Amino acid sequence: MADRIDPLSVRKADHEISDIFLKRWSPRAMSGEAVSQEELLRLFEAARWAPSSYNEQEWRFLYAHRDTSEWQRFFDLLVEMNQAWCKNAAVLILVVSKKTMTQNGKPNLVHSLDTGMAVQNLMLQAVTMENVVTHGMAGFDRDAARRELGVPEDFDIECMIAVGRPGSPSDLPEALRDKEQPSLRRPIDAIAREGRFTF
Amino acid sequence: MADRIDPLSVRKADHEISDIFLKRWSPRAMSGEAVSQEELLRLFEAARWAPSSYNEQEWRFLYAHRDTSEWQRFFDLLVEMNQAWCKNAAVLILVVSKKTMTQNGKPNLVHSLDTGMAVQNLMLQAVTMENVVTHGMAGFDRDAARRELGVPEDFDIECMIAVGRPGSPSDLPEALRDKEQPSLRRPIDAIAREGRFTF
Repeated sequence: MADRIDPLSVRKADHEISDIFLKRWSPRAMSGEAVSQEELLRLFEAARWAPSSYNEQEWRFLYAHRDTSEWQRFFDLLVEMNQAWCKNAAVLILVVSKKTMTQNGKPNLVHSLDTGMAVQNLMLQAVTMENVVTHGMAGFDRDAARRELGVPEDFDIECMIAVGRPGSPSDLPEALRDKEQPSLRRPIDAIAREGRFTF
Repeated sequence: MADRIDPLSVRKADHEISDIFLKRWSPRAMSGEAVSQEELLRLFEAARWAPSSYNEQEWRFLYAHRDTSEWQRFFDLLVEMNQAWCKNAAVLILVVSKKTMTQNGKPNLVHSLDTGMAVQNLMLQAVTMENVVTHGMAGFDRDAARRELGVPEDFDIECMIAVGRPGSPSDLPEALRDKEQPSLRRPIDAIAREGRFTF
């Protein structure tokens, strides 16, 4: 796509890392084209291999492809600002996580953390596929998600993810067009410290 | 290392994904050798580029290198079973996350999820370095971590991570030696479902 943004032109690492981490960003511009079930399964496959406490694998993914009977149910959960661009997504995913350990029923203190690891795998796998983009969202109705998708009380609602084909920023509503660029980060000194908490 | 385990000999993906996800596993066998500060910064650099709600970057990493005055403080937080092998780790990290949004002080509903994404980046970056291994841990004293490392109430204690050089499984205590292999996963059908929650 002619006007597709290259994150590596915007982001520079302060210390040598794999490009995959810089190339992963969260575009809103999606083309409205479908993503195949086989491609989607490759994303879940990557998520599957994330680590979890006692290998609990407490993450669960509910999803809907566009142009299916399930789509509207997922789309309606989103806040208006997310609907404005998710109408061109190919797949919407709701991520939930089991709050208790399967082995003994005790609280799982790291269920959200572990699930984040699975989500990051999913997003990084998309980067390797080059024509699939992802965008994680916190902006949706969590109560409605639980109700409309039948999520049991023992599971927490974590996030939603839009998956799609890269689109053209010029097709976004104006307010979102200006935000359509890879975000930067604070320096490492703002997030890592030797010894005690001294931020 | 002659007896170093190759995860790709144990793990097979059901759908095509990057090898990086299969190569990431959680060995306990570490050699007791140091990992340099520059190598550690490469791990934090990868973590830094994870996505977060409103680019909050709510993850914080406190760490101690072995053979420093901070080491014992971190080591003492671990449960005995983790101390048994972490004595040969090079760096111990405590991961915490800010529970409220910096912008407006409101609760951040995805602080643990976002932090998991940063942690996964850190672990995957280690995979690309080939002579650095990581192992996430939930088994440590969270109250002591808060107290001993001065973590404010506005931050949640998430996990600890051991970073080290790959070691020989034969040096592990017998009970851990048998567990020293890459874990497998349940099938995708157990974690992903179209439409409503039907697990």
